[in-house]
Amino acid sequence: MQYIPGLAGVPATESKISYIDGQQGLLTYRGFDIQELAEHSTFEETTLLLLFGHLPTADELTTFDKLLRENRRVKYNIREIMKNLPTTTHPMHMLQVVVASLASFYPSTEYMKGGSENQDYINDVTVKIIAHMGTLVANWEHMRNGFDPIEPRKDLNYAENFLYMVTGEEPDKDWARLLDAILILHAEHTINASTFTTMVTGSTLANPCSVISSAIASLSGPLHGGANQKVIEMLDEIGTPEKARPYIEQRLADKKVIWGMGHREYKTKDPRATILQKLSMELLEKKSGAGELSAAFETAMEVERVCEELLGHKGVYPNVDFYSGILYKEMGFDPGLFTPIFAVARSAGWMAHWREQLQNNKIFRPTQVYTGSGKACYIPLAERE
Amino acid sequence: MQYIPGLAGVPATESKISYIDGQQGLLTYRGFDIQELAEHSTFEETTLLLLFGHLPTADELTTFDKLLRENRRVKYNIREIMKNLPTTTHPMHMLQVVVASLASFYPSTEYMKGGSENQDYINDVTVKIIAHMGTLVANWEHMRNGFDPIEPRKDLNYAENFLYMVTGEEPDKDWARLLDAILILHAEHTINASTFTTMVTGSTLANPCSVISSAIASLSGPLHGGANQKVIEMLDEIGTPEKARPYIEQRLADKKVIWGMGHREYKTKDPRATILQKLSMELLEKKSGAGELSAAFETAMEVERVCEELLGHKGVYPNVDFYSGILYKEMGFDPGLFTPIFAVARSAGWMAHWREQLQNNKIFRPTQVYTGSGKACYIPLAERE
Repeated sequence: MQYIPGLAGVPATESKISYIDGQQGLLTYRGFDIQELAEHSTFEETTLLLLFGHLPTADELTTFDKLLRENRRVKYNIREIMKNLPTTTHPMHMLQVVVASLASFYPSTEYMKGGSENQDYINDVTVKIIAHMGTLVANWEHMRNGFDPIEPRKDLNYAENFLYMVTGEEPDKDWARLLDAILILHAEHTINASTFTTMVTGSTLANPCSVISSAIASLSGPLHGGANQKVIEMLDEIGTPEKARPYIEQRLADKKVIWGMGHREYKTKDPRATILQKLSMELLEKKSGAGELSAAFETAMEVERVCEELLGHKGVYPNVDFYSGILYKEMGFDPGLFTPIFAVARSAGWMAHWREQLQNNKIFRPTQVYTGSGKACYIPLAERE
Repeated sequence: MQYIPGLAGVPATESKISYIDGQQGLLTYRGFDIQELAEHSTFEETTLLLLFGHLPTADELTTFDKLLRENRRVKYNIREIMKNLPTTTHPMHMLQVVVASLASFYPSTEYMKGGSENQDYINDVTVKIIAHMGTLVANWEHMRNGFDPIEPRKDLNYAENFLYMVTGEEPDKDWARLLDAILILHAEHTINASTFTTMVTGSTLANPCSVISSAIASLSGPLHGGANQKVIEMLDEIGTPEKARPYIEQRLADKKVIWGMGHREYKTKDPRATILQKLSMELLEKKSGAGELSAAFETAMEVERVCEELLGHKGVYPNVDFYSGILYKEMGFDPGLFTPIFAVARSAGWMAHWREQLQNNKIFRPTQVYTGSGKACYIPLAERE
């Protein structure tokens, strides 16, 4: 069999979870168009859809939402672990450490026996991990600045509570709804590197907290998460819409990356970018008056126009990271939070893939093309040159 | 392209590091037969061989060994993190948490820029991780029992120091030499699930501490590490050599696993099992007098004889786990340490693969066979049944 670097195009699983049509710019979760979900669904509902394959009934949704709210609190020993991390610790590294530690605080070896027989444990740990993600990220944002974290509230939904825990203020309903849509849009995207890590680590029947910690590690890599932080830096550098064209032209001449443009899977505009752009224009205009957008947003739209003209024929269009960074900034989030928010959302997809992997598990053990030396003879140290 | 579960036989990398001939029962590191290395080399030298591809000169070995000895100490904040883990925490979970935290204590983003340009950082973190592994495992063995950990010593080699830190006693030279050989035998084994995890996570250019933490997660899965602990439990259950045959026959009739028997890659006796058996027989006879072996060892050899008779035609022979557990027990190690020792040794191979991955990196992003539903329409919650 031929060796293909990065296993590009090599099927590594059968999956019912999500589907990408890169030519048409289509993304569906369990058959549902991401646009419909972003407009009508919630992160809680979408998570249930990803996990179980159908839109929940009102009862199912209420039960799950209640469990999520009840499992947001973080044990003080876990916060002590966080306190012993240097305050310079990147939120993604904190998250990897602490989610791994959940395996000690919420252990089980029972489900491991043969895979998926202990459904109660699997459901319980799924809720615990997803519910904890938001609290951990929001807590660290205060703790790394030397402040006590803000306790989660039960009377708010996932997005509202996250916004509350980060800002410490009563969440604005409009911004919370937009954050909810962002969480939906980032919840799942077939088997990219972090989801594939979930499957590989999960296939050894490792504890799910260990598995999700590994996925966080993959997402922390600059080739995977983190591009939206780069977009903001780029837009700041550009400054105003008029400067977009010369900046982009120079960057292309220098063969440098235009952050937030292009995606391995899409040959047209990333559907998530389209939706984010639409939702944010609506909200920004509502907040600042008709026709008024933020400076970064105006600059971004001009960058998109220039890029479409110069790069559209190559299939390079905005991806999801192009608009999400701007929105996070408008919400008052520090750039260090951008990738962790991605991780919070993606924990839903990771858990769905972990559960799918268990249902028909085979340990991942690919092979290698050996290109090393033939038989060599050991030479004692004293005789070596 | 055809979907093959677990990517069995699918080439996922080109590698110069190690080679397995499963028909002949051969394993080489960089061309060197594992048997020669186990008999003549040391863990420190073998690690250098795996990392750099050649047997080191005396100077290279001295420098590397000195660095390993100097980097054994663990910062007290890291020990505080360990103190906040429940004492019931499995050593593999502790190891995943703490190795992930090293990314905060020994950070760098510089090497990430494009891969392998920051060679100094890569070499430094390689030493730090490998040197820390042994200390962390030995420290936790005391801490999980409520005792202060034992500080590492600089005047001992890796295996001697590990034995010292676990037992608190001056290490027996013979046992230390055998442990050294065990570390060599476990240091590398092509791209099994944990090494493959190293490659997948590493391909995103995540911090190497994050990467090795992920590999530890994979190894913690009961389908990957952990079989040698099962072997000991099985031998204890059998009790004496005479009971081996009826026990094995019953187990086969019940279609139960015979622990430590058979390996996906080997159709004959695992070369590591052959070497371990030979080295341990020599040592056990030296310790207890000619012809005298430990009860567990006598039972194990009888189990092997029975299995060869009943299963040899299927290519099922002892693997490396079959004898390693017995030896750890003789050395006075708690069964909870068996998989962590595997991780300590394998950190050498993981680092070698991580470095190889960086040299010619492409992010892992395989594809999926979508088997889910076609387009579905969103139904508002109130209208659902």
